[in-house]
Amino acid sequence: MPPVRLADVLAWIDAHVASLDPEIVPIFEAAGRILAEDLVADMDLPPFGRAAEDGFALRSAETIGASAYNPLPFRLAPAAGDLPANSAVCVTSGDTLPVGTDAVVRMDHAELTTEEMVTIIDPVVAGHGVEQAGCHCRRGCNLVVAGRRLSPADVAVLASAGFARLSVTRRPRVHCVFVAERVIECGRQLPSACVYDANGPMLQALLHRDDGLQVAQSHVARHQDAIAEALMTPGADAVLVAGGTGSGTTDCAAAAMAAVGEVAMHGVAIRPGQTTGIGRAGRLPAVLLPGKPADCLWGYELIAGPVIRRLGGRVSQLPFPSRTMTTARKIVSEIGTLEIHAVRCLDESTVEPMASFSEAGLMPAVRGDGFVLVPEPSEGYPHGATVSVYFHG
Amino acid sequence: MPPVRLADVLAWIDAHVASLDPEIVPIFEAAGRILAEDLVADMDLPPFGRAAEDGFALRSAETIGASAYNPLPFRLAPAAGDLPANSAVCVTSGDTLPVGTDAVVRMDHAELTTEEMVTIIDPVVAGHGVEQAGCHCRRGCNLVVAGRRLSPADVAVLASAGFARLSVTRRPRVHCVFVAERVIECGRQLPSACVYDANGPMLQALLHRDDGLQVAQSHVARHQDAIAEALMTPGADAVLVAGGTGSGTTDCAAAAMAAVGEVAMHGVAIRPGQTTGIGRAGRLPAVLLPGKPADCLWGYELIAGPVIRRLGGRVSQLPFPSRTMTTARKIVSEIGTLEIHAVRCLDESTVEPMASFSEAGLMPAVRGDGFVLVPEPSEGYPHGATVSVYFHG
Repeated sequence: MPPVRLADVLAWIDAHVASLDPEIVPIFEAAGRILAEDLVADMDLPPFGRAAEDGFALRSAETIGASAYNPLPFRLAPAAGDLPANSAVCVTSGDTLPVGTDAVVRMDHAELTTEEMVTIIDPVVAGHGVEQAGCHCRRGCNLVVAGRRLSPADVAVLASAGFARLSVTRRPRVHCVFVAERVIECGRQLPSACVYDANGPMLQALLHRDDGLQVAQSHVARHQDAIAEALMTPGADAVLVAGGTGSGTTDCAAAAMAAVGEVAMHGVAIRPGQTTGIGRAGRLPAVLLPGKPADCLWGYELIAGPVIRRLGGRVSQLPFPSRTMTTARKIVSEIGTLEIHAVRCLDESTVEPMASFSEAGLMPAVRGDGFVLVPEPSEGYPHGATVSVYFHG
Repeated sequence: MPPVRLADVLAWIDAHVASLDPEIVPIFEAAGRILAEDLVADMDLPPFGRAAEDGFALRSAETIGASAYNPLPFRLAPAAGDLPANSAVCVTSGDTLPVGTDAVVRMDHAELTTEEMVTIIDPVVAGHGVEQAGCHCRRGCNLVVAGRRLSPADVAVLASAGFARLSVTRRPRVHCVFVAERVIECGRQLPSACVYDANGPMLQALLHRDDGLQVAQSHVARHQDAIAEALMTPGADAVLVAGGTGSGTTDCAAAAMAAVGEVAMHGVAIRPGQTTGIGRAGRLPAVLLPGKPADCLWGYELIAGPVIRRLGGRVSQLPFPSRTMTTARKIVSEIGTLEIHAVRCLDESTVEPMASFSEAGLMPAVRGDGFVLVPEPSEGYPHGATVSVYFHG
């Protein structure tokens, strides 16, 4: 069957893959997680009027007329109790505004004339140097909305509103099935005709980046029954199969997935990554990834990544910053296929294409600064064209 | 003393803070870490010539003259042993190229006429469908250079070159000292005149983002001796002190740091964050952060963050993507102070300023999309100005 367009695969993911249920985590572990519910302040922030500065709290009305020619003396008083006329209370930023005062004069705008007296030379208005209750956020207002990835500042605001535990989307548990022969884990002796495994460490790293948890790893031979059995390992939210997706006589990953679930699409018009497929193993979303590492990488980035990020409550888009830049050389692409081209920055605004992934394996992803996607209808970009460059640094 | 310029603080950091020593980690845990040494391939990648496609390996010379009008038959042979004339070997992508063959015809470009015969209708040249030994990377070539943050593809390439363990810069161990009174950990009952702690969860999240490890946390009263004692807790690579940095009568964090080390600079021309300071506790780099959460956040982002990232072997610059955008409203800033202004995106290319951090605490960092830095000599930007916007999403 002809390869499907990436957009159709992404539409299938949108229709068939939903956010996992939430879990409760302590606020100290919540940064970077996806908030699962809207949170509203159930107290004013700050909860009471307080000094915004280190200085002297006093009645603003009593400072009227103060100037360098008319310094006004205030007697220092304790914070508690009735405040006599022309008195001031020494306060530290964050202290409750003492009863009877309505302004704070900064330490360096006043002069401590004796241990008991302070002199003011500028009048202040009511509220000067004061944070009123609720001035950051009123009780009942939205603090952070569901679906947001919690930043350090988000966590701080929620903590200051008293939230000790938060409901966040559960991290997807992922089972990786590696279908390979003559692929050896690095660290061992390499027998002849064998290569070291790249996909194992790579998928582990990609899942970690996308906040997936690799809960199981199976290494199986290129036999349909063995793959099918591995696909049904319990305890995961999604399954990734790497290898055995091609047209060779022993490529039986798709058949194995069909036997225990459904192959919705197999063969996608992307390069690298054409033999990527998607469907279900039992009821779980499952992605077939090519065994060749560059193809496995892009099958993950364009198809498995969106599944994992969507399960985790994130946006499914590519997790890379992008910038509009200009091509310093022509980029040639096949019409009908979405091609990924690694690029290198020549300066702030110009990129040049590098060797293709089919010529140089993963090296362009290592040596390049980013990549350009050339969509299916395009035969590439001429020299001097404007392109969106994604940075994977 | 007048506040110092941020550039002077950063110059002090560059001069006084160096990368930590490396440690060895398994390749499966190396993604996101900073490689501590240049790594060179000590084998060709791939290590041997191999099929790049699923298909039929054969002698390219024997395909000369093949066409739809002149289909040439090849007899299927096993991979081992001498290959008779006009024979082909069925191969899977990644298989060693069988002895005697020099090209691979893709499965779908050939026709399997019987179980023993395949018909070729297009001639191929030597090397077609083949990955030569070393075509991704030659033995002796650089793979990844020291100082690089390892991406999933980097890890995959290093794994395929046989590196099972990597030397990476050690993560900085950080001790956080909180100098606060009437600040309660969230989850407890809030007594009157007290607020919930925001800085604890925030610094934890910031350190985690910058790959620091918070190895100890001390909560001490605003007393110089108590702070000094906490500063000397062993086992850390750096110390952050939050609170007690102002000009109030109980602000003794700087005095405590001076007593056990050195206060290099205290008072920086940044807003928020003016009372931030830097120096040493014993021999460790130490940063004094203001207790007010918005000031603590920006003291961290602009000063403590560079210390932590530099210890960890990273670039010390702000870890946020930035984009050039246009202001939809005027941004007003005080000359002589580097001000941070939160902004909200109105569309793809336009931002507007939000309430200031001094008016709204941390809320602008939560509700905004990013921020703009207005440098010391500037009094701000008019409507329609071009600015660099950092995105903290």
